[in-house]
Amino acid sequence: MKMHVLRLTPGQEVKTSLEEYVRREAVRGVVVLTCCGSLTSATLRLAAAPDGTTDKIKTFKKHFEVLGMSGTISRGGAHLHICLSDDQGGTLGGHVMGDLVVFTTMEIALGEATDVILDRQDDPATGYDELTVTKDQA
Amino acid sequence: MKMHVLRLTPGQEVKTSLEEYVRREAVRGVVVLTCCGSLTSATLRLAAAPDGTTDKIKTFKKHFEVLGMSGTISRGGAHLHICLSDDQGGTLGGHVMGDLVVFTTMEIALGEATDVILDRQDDPATGYDELTVTKDQA
Amino acid sequence: MKMHVLRLTPGQEVKTSLEEYVRREAVRGVVVLTCCGSLTSATLRLAAAPDGTTDKIKTFKKHFEVLGMSGTISRGGAHLHICLSDDQGGTLGGHVMGDLVVFTTMEIALGEATDVILDRQDDPATGYDELTVTKDQA
Repeated sequence: MKMHVLRLTPGQEVKTSLEEYVRREAVRGVVVLTCCGSLTSATLRLAAAPDGTTDKIKTFKKHFEVLGMSGTISRGGAHLHICLSDDQGGTLGGHVMGDLVVFTTMEIALGEATDVILDRQDDPATGYDELTVTKDQA
Repeated sequence: MKMHVLRLTPGQEVKTSLEEYVRREAVRGVVVLTCCGSLTSATLRLAAAPDGTTDKIKTFKKHFEVLGMSGTISRGGAHLHICLSDDQGGTLGGHVMGDLVVFTTMEIALGEATDVILDRQDDPATGYDELTVTKDQA
Repeated sequence: MKMHVLRLTPGQEVKTSLEEYVRREAVRGVVVLTCCGSLTSATLRLAAAPDGTTDKIKTFKKHFEVLGMSGTISRGGAHLHICLSDDQGGTLGGHVMGDLVVFTTMEIALGEATDVILDRQDDPATGYDELTVTKDQA
């Protein structure tokens, strides 16, 4: 594994910035190792309702601390979940759709696979593009 | 450190799946680097009450996004804490007892120690099997 | 990346223990890979208020499970965000100021940079010491 450490600055959008970084600097794909900073907005898809439907997307416009982010980013796209806290210490989270605009800073460490290639492909069982992990033949 | 990346599929139980994987593929033990996916249930031990007793175990049966999971897994067992979000974006969490049944997917990266061996042994000071880290003599 | 795995024991303070460890054992700086354990207190700076001011610091004295911690630690200091859960499973979090006193245990994995040096320096744009990542010339 090769570790990449980067800082994003005020106004940058986290998801697209990381997708661009990975396309340029870590073509085998990465996992998120650490993510610590602050945001002024976030658009999240929330967990499925009791009937299993997963369609509730909500945009939050407020100041958040990022307590953590997990997931993978590859040429197939990003799958990221984030945990945020507000000015009362209360927390919320979900699946990252976008609009993660940096307030003061965002410190991120990514772990790049060196012997496998991460990608995503459609899985009829779930209806989503799901993570694939294949040996790097190179 | 060697990184292992895997995807669990609908219906798999996360804790036992990871314990089996580590027994087979990462005998020196691992730490959880990233964990991102969805569940239909979780049994957690909650934090200690004000008197310090730690015995409240609760099973949640609903759809959750996994925002993150931390901890270690070795031949001595797993010590995992998880952070979950629901269909309102609200979050909860605690010590993983089991029943982490995958809803659509679970993407997990594990970091395997290469120069140390992780294990657990009884610590009379806490009453639990606690993490030990010893140099690998091999 | 070199992985460091350690266990802190009852009564130790997490932030200063990690800063000392990094000064001694990982001079290029580290990112937090995993953090799993329990606390009896925490002093956190909460997210900014709607007007952007970030000055609300609160000390919590109760039993918490640590669900995760993210961030970086270097010779320039630590930048850590933490997610905690209580005896109802409820969660809270924010920027770590200190007073993270271990209850029973704290299992931590750190990833040490091997080809870059992490540090912090004042950024007039934010008013904080912000992360710098520079190539290690050695």
